Amino acid sequence: MTTSSFAPLKNDTFLRACLRQATDYTPIWMMRQAGRFLPEYRATRAKAGSFMGLATNTDYATEVTIQPTERFPIDAAILFSDILTVPDAMGLGLSFAEGEGPKFATAVRDEAAVAQLAVPDMAKLRYVFDAVTSIRKALNGRLPLIGFSGSPWTLACYMVEGGSSDDYHRVKTMLYSRPDLLHRILQINADAVALYLNTQIESGAQAVMVFDSWGGVLADGAFQEFSLAYNRRVLSQLHKSWNGATIPSILFTKGGGLWLREMEPLDCNVLGVDWTVNLAKARTIVGGSKAIQGNLDPAALFAPPAQIEQEVIRTLNAFGTPYTGDATGPTHIFNLGHGISQHTPVEHVAALVEAVHKHSRAMRGAC
Amino acid sequence: MTTSSFAPLKNDTFLRACLRQATDYTPIWMMRQAGRFLPEYRATRAKAGSFMGLATNTDYATEVTIQPTERFPIDAAILFSDILTVPDAMGLGLSFAEGEGPKFATAVRDEAAVAQLAVPDMAKLRYVFDAVTSIRKALNGRLPLIGFSGSPWTLACYMVEGGSSDDYHRVKTMLYSRPDLLHRILQINADAVALYLNTQIESGAQAVMVFDSWGGVLADGAFQEFSLAYNRRVLSQLHKSWNGATIPSILFTKGGGLWLREMEPLDCNVLGVDWTVNLAKARTIVGGSKAIQGNLDPAALFAPPAQIEQEVIRTLNAFGTPYTGDATGPTHIFNLGHGISQHTPVEHVAALVEAVHKHSRAMRGAC
Repeated sequence: MTTSSFAPLKNDTFLRACLRQATDYTPIWMMRQAGRFLPEYRATRAKAGSFMGLATNTDYATEVTIQPTERFPIDAAILFSDILTVPDAMGLGLSFAEGEGPKFATAVRDEAAVAQLAVPDMAKLRYVFDAVTSIRKALNGRLPLIGFSGSPWTLACYMVEGGSSDDYHRVKTMLYSRPDLLHRILQINADAVALYLNTQIESGAQAVMVFDSWGGVLADGAFQEFSLAYNRRVLSQLHKSWNGATIPSILFTKGGGLWLREMEPLDCNVLGVDWTVNLAKARTIVGGSKAIQGNLDPAALFAPPAQIEQEVIRTLNAFGTPYTGDATGPTHIFNLGHGISQHTPVEHVAALVEAVHKHSRAMRGAC
Repeated sequence: MTTSSFAPLKNDTFLRACLRQATDYTPIWMMRQAGRFLPEYRATRAKAGSFMGLATNTDYATEVTIQPTERFPIDAAILFSDILTVPDAMGLGLSFAEGEGPKFATAVRDEAAVAQLAVPDMAKLRYVFDAVTSIRKALNGRLPLIGFSGSPWTLACYMVEGGSSDDYHRVKTMLYSRPDLLHRILQINADAVALYLNTQIESGAQAVMVFDSWGGVLADGAFQEFSLAYNRRVLSQLHKSWNGATIPSILFTKGGGLWLREMEPLDCNVLGVDWTVNLAKARTIVGGSKAIQGNLDPAALFAPPAQIEQEVIRTLNAFGTPYTGDATGPTHIFNLGHGISQHTPVEHVAALVEAVHKHSRAMRGAC
């Protein structure tokens, strides 16, 4: 099938907000919404046998992507996949030991290893693109589908460390000792990520998001040189539209609140912010050209529904008066400030979504 | 002996910089400078048998505090102690399992546990105050001695979690569900920390520092309510001078760069910043009333000495033209943006200290 034969979109609230157009309410989705807090996710995960078994199987990836959209009236679906598919396709050999984080068979730590890196053949990532098309079909126009990738710097952290890290010892040693090697990795990563996201768009993704999960561990100066510059390189290469539809792009830098002013000129539509950011200040800094996505502390969902509602009101009020004009203006997409915790009670998520929709509608009524 | 009989101070560069007075060069010390990167520390630690055996023995605590000051021409010593001495003195039962982080026998998680908390009898912390006096005597006026404590919020994190945490699940659940309980803990912690620091001052500490190591994990709004407000309560209670000497106070909030403007009015002399902060911007925001301490990424010390020197120059230049006037002005105390890594080569630290002194002198010559 061609992607142009997908069903027409019924709920475009999220896409409109990405493009800074007025909406009847503030759309909401949650990072890691297809995840372990859902019993139905855990059931599919058990069937799949392993995390990569889940991510590489089109039917399973479709199933878990759809699950949260059936349980909660959220406003977007996001592709279920792993953040490390691209370096895996580069031949680094991704695996997940039970109860541990990701591991690469080959870490990229010296000149020889860097010399062997190249933008991977997208055929190796066919399972991702097949999942995108399958999910888009399964959504049947109910909701838009977001594709995603890790940022060049975030991928480099895992590639150099060989897996997760809590001190970034190896990648920062490379950064300060052999910046030339790190720049080479980042150039390749940036071009690979751009191609990967564009192929997701061609496969059916209606928006794309870059997760710069580890941008915030960099020093001022190093952030601009090793993270921001390569996010710029990715964003500038992305399809702005596909099959006649505008494709919004989102950049989320965890811990990047200090650098919003420097992110404002980026060629993307939305900036995601974590919970340390004051939404009113973010709106002042970037709201003239970007929609803002965020930023409830995922830990707020451990509190009972009444307190969750208070935190939702506080977050909506922090962003302030909703834009209701005819052209474009500052818009807000509600999200968590990071991925939802596996310990989150399911009924608390229902309370969150309901509160966001209810209070954001009321705020517009009051305008 | 009375504390007024201590030897006169020979190197007051650090204290002058704390008070925003001009100095011939930029003073430097390093967070966690009495630590595992030093072979002589590891030797003393082995003799002591355990971490708390080291911290609670006056002679050992003195020995490890002095060690880095004998190896490097740094400009201040900082008391060697644990950050959790105060909750231990509250009766929570601190221990360190080999190869693991701190653990409390009793965590503070419910109304009953909170009701039992009280500002501890300072007699239980006598080993700390004895160490302060012993170190001050051993320094013999060579360098000033900094005392320290964890911040009320940072202590509360450990007290509620029962030890270290990577997601702050329990303390944030309390924050969002039962803020009244957390406020009660924080009030007690603040008064305990103030008394603890004042007793360190009375015992010989010539400056004091509050480590808000986990302030940066809080959401905007929660930070002001649960961290900043209680740091304010601590700082307002501190001795401003003792035995005729002004006692500067330093607040370091890891990950607090977004809230510098709100920290500027605090009743302290120095604000510490981590490596994500741009020193020129920090100087603009708080330099009118505060000295600034920081902020080299500790990972920069993994690079060879030539690159370390470049990073030092970059950091000094980021702060900008040194203050050389007769009154007071914006001053800089060089430090790392967080504690030094145990993996740091000793000779790299020597290169760091030399580069800071050399280049900061040259910058003043060039004024």
